[in-house]
Amino acid sequence: MAKQERAIRTREKILVAAAEVFAEVGYDAATIAEVLKRSEVTKGALYFHFSSKDDLAQAVLAEQLSSLPQVPPQELVLQEGLDESLMLAYLLGKGDPMVRGGIRLTVDQGTSQDVLDRAASMQNWIDHNAEILERAKQGGELLPHVDVAAAAKIFVAAFTGVQILSKIMTGHTDMTERMTDVQKHLMATLAAPGVLVRLDFGPDRGARVYEAAMKQHHTAAEPASA
Amino acid sequence: MAKQERAIRTREKILVAAAEVFAEVGYDAATIAEVLKRSEVTKGALYFHFSSKDDLAQAVLAEQLSSLPQVPPQELVLQEGLDESLMLAYLLGKGDPMVRGGIRLTVDQGTSQDVLDRAASMQNWIDHNAEILERAKQGGELLPHVDVAAAAKIFVAAFTGVQILSKIMTGHTDMTERMTDVQKHLMATLAAPGVLVRLDFGPDRGARVYEAAMKQHHTAAEPASA
Repeated sequence: MAKQERAIRTREKILVAAAEVFAEVGYDAATIAEVLKRSEVTKGALYFHFSSKDDLAQAVLAEQLSSLPQVPPQELVLQEGLDESLMLAYLLGKGDPMVRGGIRLTVDQGTSQDVLDRAASMQNWIDHNAEILERAKQGGELLPHVDVAAAAKIFVAAFTGVQILSKIMTGHTDMTERMTDVQKHLMATLAAPGVLVRLDFGPDRGARVYEAAMKQHHTAAEPASA
Repeated sequence: MAKQERAIRTREKILVAAAEVFAEVGYDAATIAEVLKRSEVTKGALYFHFSSKDDLAQAVLAEQLSSLPQVPPQELVLQEGLDESLMLAYLLGKGDPMVRGGIRLTVDQGTSQDVLDRAASMQNWIDHNAEILERAKQGGELLPHVDVAAAAKIFVAAFTGVQILSKIMTGHTDMTERMTDVQKHLMATLAAPGVLVRLDFGPDRGARVYEAAMKQHHTAAEPASA
């Protein structure tokens, strides 16, 4: 393994451990000592990559979107957007640390002392949703009156609220069910009728998308690691 | 002022001060000392009503729904439900401490040490929404296929998510706008068409409902205080 590749893996290991700690106890109660223990890297290695707890938290926030497996392309852009949210719901239910940690850091309001840029993290999600909706609009998948900027915020708000409710009431067990319900209602007011009937809201869709995304990722990565 | 009435007012003063502190710094960082300072009551009076910080927080959670002004009855039950959510959005924007404090306590995930019953608080909101939707269904205001239990959860999740997004992005300034957007999308998939066109989503609806609710409250209270 090349030196650079090793450094990237160490960084990722630290980040996943940090996300796990943030997901469990929140920003305030999290400690570097606990991250060290879980990641099993040396103190020197951790401080080579991250200068502080703040720095770790900002990295978890900044990379929560980019660390997600890319969903396989679909004929309908709206299906891709739906697939992402169902895959996220599935990963939350499974207890994925990066997803849980990133979301908790964003959603917890924090004390006045912490310096996390929650707005930047939310804005990433809004922009990402707006980009998907804009592509869907270009392809004629949306009803003509849809306001893409407002709809992007609705999707982000809906996901945020569903995950909090599901966490509090069931420890994320009913996350997929709740997310599917909300998506059905929102899509019914956004998607052109011919598109709406073709969307797959199946209960195991999130798991299937995740598997396909991982397979695609490994296939793509093979030549590089060979 | 009768002795009992004075006790009720003192209790309310403490509760509002506590809600304010919880809204600002969250459960973990809140202290009884700060609540005492803001409420301007004696330590003895506070401990007469509440035995601990936990106790205060549970009371804010338990009374967040019942402390809301009752919205004036409307011809359409769905308008009453909509009015409540728009009034809540308006109160959040205005910085109402009971609403902000109660919501923050519910939404912040807390440390493993705190003993707040967030699920009971969420369940109150779900039950409350289900009751409104059930009445709307009885009155023929809903589309025939609507699943009341699932829809109640969608409304609670949507409100929760909208308030977090609005708080993070604008400090609650765009709360009414975001809430109205979401309500329009949800109502479009729930309300019978003849009902949908009669719903008032006006931008100042929340403020008007709040004024009417307060007027109704004061009128009703007058004979007692005369």
